[in-house]
Amino acid sequence: MINKLVENIKKTNAPIVVGLDPMLNYIPEHVQKKAFAEYGETLEGAAEAIWQFNKEIVDKTCDLIPAVKPQIAMYEQFGIPGLAAFKKTVDYCKEKGLVVIGDIKRGDIGSTSAAYAVGHVGRVQVGSHTYTPFAEDFVTVNPYLGSDGVNPFIKVCKEEKKGIFVLVKTSNPSSGEFQDQLINGRPLYELVGEKVALWGEEHMGDEYSYVGAVVGATYPEMGKVLRKIMPKSYILVPGYGAQGGKGKDLIHFFNEDGLGAIVNSSRGIIAAYKQENYAKFGAEHFGDASRAAVEDMIKDIKEALENR
Amino acid sequence: MINKLVENIKKTNAPIVVGLDPMLNYIPEHVQKKAFAEYGETLEGAAEAIWQFNKEIVDKTCDLIPAVKPQIAMYEQFGIPGLAAFKKTVDYCKEKGLVVIGDIKRGDIGSTSAAYAVGHVGRVQVGSHTYTPFAEDFVTVNPYLGSDGVNPFIKVCKEEKKGIFVLVKTSNPSSGEFQDQLINGRPLYELVGEKVALWGEEHMGDEYSYVGAVVGATYPEMGKVLRKIMPKSYILVPGYGAQGGKGKDLIHFFNEDGLGAIVNSSRGIIAAYKQENYAKFGAEHFGDASRAAVEDMIKDIKEALENR
Repeated sequence: MINKLVENIKKTNAPIVVGLDPMLNYIPEHVQKKAFAEYGETLEGAAEAIWQFNKEIVDKTCDLIPAVKPQIAMYEQFGIPGLAAFKKTVDYCKEKGLVVIGDIKRGDIGSTSAAYAVGHVGRVQVGSHTYTPFAEDFVTVNPYLGSDGVNPFIKVCKEEKKGIFVLVKTSNPSSGEFQDQLINGRPLYELVGEKVALWGEEHMGDEYSYVGAVVGATYPEMGKVLRKIMPKSYILVPGYGAQGGKGKDLIHFFNEDGLGAIVNSSRGIIAAYKQENYAKFGAEHFGDASRAAVEDMIKDIKEALENR
Repeated sequence: MINKLVENIKKTNAPIVVGLDPMLNYIPEHVQKKAFAEYGETLEGAAEAIWQFNKEIVDKTCDLIPAVKPQIAMYEQFGIPGLAAFKKTVDYCKEKGLVVIGDIKRGDIGSTSAAYAVGHVGRVQVGSHTYTPFAEDFVTVNPYLGSDGVNPFIKVCKEEKKGIFVLVKTSNPSSGEFQDQLINGRPLYELVGEKVALWGEEHMGDEYSYVGAVVGATYPEMGKVLRKIMPKSYILVPGYGAQGGKGKDLIHFFNEDGLGAIVNSSRGIIAAYKQENYAKFGAEHFGDASRAAVEDMIKDIKEALENR
């Protein structure tokens, strides 16, 4: 699947991923109204609104982008109906040829991580049958529990040719509280980065490893160091746009070949119609606003890479 | 809810929690067969088997115990039907007067942690209505992203009088890889423990804080130190029984008042009928085997506390 991700990135010439993180207040009123008319102001109604919103954005952007990253929390908050909309979104994006990165940030002790792994990137056995419950292509994984929390994901990924992105340095303001703590003079995130490189050696695709890393766009200097520590790992870069990251902050996340990083934008794309720049599309045409925002993001990153 | 937890512990005189982590191979064949006869060897069939298994164990043990801890991964691996069985289990245990600790180990950046928090311990707004999707009493939280990943949980917990247990030192063999790294001569888990104490000060129940910690039974010496660092935090102690922890290892997790810790056993209780000690019950009476295992666990911990 890392090969397919790299291939999709080369084909679209767009190292970006659209974060499908649909807060209800991002969803235009006409979409909500229609869903509520059918299902009432219920969890099912919210899930339907999310699904219709996602579908329109995917339809309007899928030819421009290599991948999407649905954030499962935004679905899980609406309980079972919300999680059903997550699954529907994953399936639809895969039908459209997109690589799907499930932003689930799971991580537990061995047997429990194994359960998450089969549920999200593997297959689970029931009697003599097997099922692929959520079937994302990649998932994000929290490393706090160490190797025996991560290895079960890698094991399943090897069997299924799928991949993970391990949280190394997150984009949020207080990520430094623990991640930046110095251990023998070096920050914790570097140690985690070294582990990612090690884990990745055991599960290589053609050019890059199936084990990637999450490093926030909001910390470009750290991205520079981590790029060198994990030369064969794809870096998933959140924090572009709404969280403050800009194209020029991103150049050090990429290798010389222009590959090695994929930049996520969520709100900046899916709620583009709410921004001044794209207000002309109006809420009715929110999908077109998202398409325009994708085009601008691709241009911003392309220019930054050309001028480095 | 921390007050209810303490009250339940005092009432049962049992500082234990039963981990409802139903792997399919823990579930007796007759239970699986019946579920598969109705739903086929499907995700729905697996979910039904889990639910019937849980119900029997809860029915046979609920008068002896203060709380249960369903591990959501074991349900999530069966997709939407599995998660529906998780919810059914949570609801049933609450009906029975048990405190429910959702072992979800979530944690993300601010707005995303807020979504997990409303979904699991809070209420989510849909139009003019609110819903409580999963409605656990406590959840476990991963601290790797720092305060702004944890605070949204605390905010929701304050509103709803619910609580969290933050992963401090986990029970698995490789937990030390990152958690034990020395920062200015002190391990990372102590820093996290200090944060737990700080976060907890802002959200106190009568005797204990709504912000607890997870510290593995497999690391008793670290439990001793962490007990002192977080005097007002309840410690949720996994790793008893099948993972190797014994009653005498647990004494330092408790305060002098005999409170302050709640010890989890999963496999040791729910799959007791598979152990030599309880084989006499047979698979047909697995619930009675679980009851006997609960009684033995309570006795083991009680004796250890009396002899300290």
